[in-house]
Amino acid sequence: MIDGTGRELLADLGSGVRVERAAAQDVPRIVELLRADQLGAGREQDPGDPRYLAAFDDIAGDPRQLLTVLVQHGSVIGTMQLTTVPGLSRLGSTRVIIEAVRVSETTRGQGLGGRYLQWAIDRARTDGAALVQLTTDRSRADAHRFYERLGFEASHVGMKLRLR
Amino acid sequence: MIDGTGRELLADLGSGVRVERAAAQDVPRIVELLRADQLGAGREQDPGDPRYLAAFDDIAGDPRQLLTVLVQHGSVIGTMQLTTVPGLSRLGSTRVIIEAVRVSETTRGQGLGGRYLQWAIDRARTDGAALVQLTTDRSRADAHRFYERLGFEASHVGMKLRLR
Repeated sequence: MIDGTGRELLADLGSGVRVERAAAQDVPRIVELLRADQLGAGREQDPGDPRYLAAFDDIAGDPRQLLTVLVQHGSVIGTMQLTTVPGLSRLGSTRVIIEAVRVSETTRGQGLGGRYLQWAIDRARTDGAALVQLTTDRSRADAHRFYERLGFEASHVGMKLRLR
Repeated sequence: MIDGTGRELLADLGSGVRVERAAAQDVPRIVELLRADQLGAGREQDPGDPRYLAAFDDIAGDPRQLLTVLVQHGSVIGTMQLTTVPGLSRLGSTRVIIEAVRVSETTRGQGLGGRYLQWAIDRARTDGAALVQLTTDRSRADAHRFYERLGFEASHVGMKLRLR
């Protein structure tokens, strides 16, 4: 189902809150959400930079990527990207990797982040994935507790190597 | 270049060691390598199970997946899967996620694992990725040191949620 904004509805979470597939016109807002984040602030540029739109096209053209927005009463207040990765491990099962989760600070405390993540977990299960995984910065203690409440286990070390 | 085994050569690391794109006939051997691992032992089944081959086809048909084998004098002694994930973060940059890294215990101490990983890092850089990342079980202290020597930083917590 495509609504008036041109976005596909993925889930109606009730109380005027919906998960929708991100559309091209959402790119500047998503970049704003990435940039509003403490750790993301230094990493992002002008939300109108055409490289963001080119990356959006790459994501939208890949059936294993799902870039979503969280919409409350018509306003984009969050974003999350899901990547489905096929693999041989665990009898050839797929896993879903969650990246770039942001929910606007102005809507914190309403439990929207938890419902958004729970939607992603449920979707991964329905799609037959064996595992959902994500990495979160060591310094984000609140985020660790948030994910643990959702059933995630901090079982791994997330290692990153920056190339540029 | 396709060699006599039907595999595409990805890199010649010298001393009879090559990185090649995995072919369908490598699936049982790759599953054996996954199963030989302490933590993987309980997770894998009969390497001849057709679900492994179906998963291989999914991987091989996805241009953002690269399932590789490490070959020494014609024998498969290691495996690693690379996934390229497009994203909006960092001015729309891609990241490479490394999964399912295994090198046969019988060849440990020759520095083959390090050369294999260094090849993956160099390839990600050449392909324009901004980041290489992986998660490794908290209990694998040796692995953490191994990846840190290669330049990885243990900057994140890797959170997993099993769905089945």
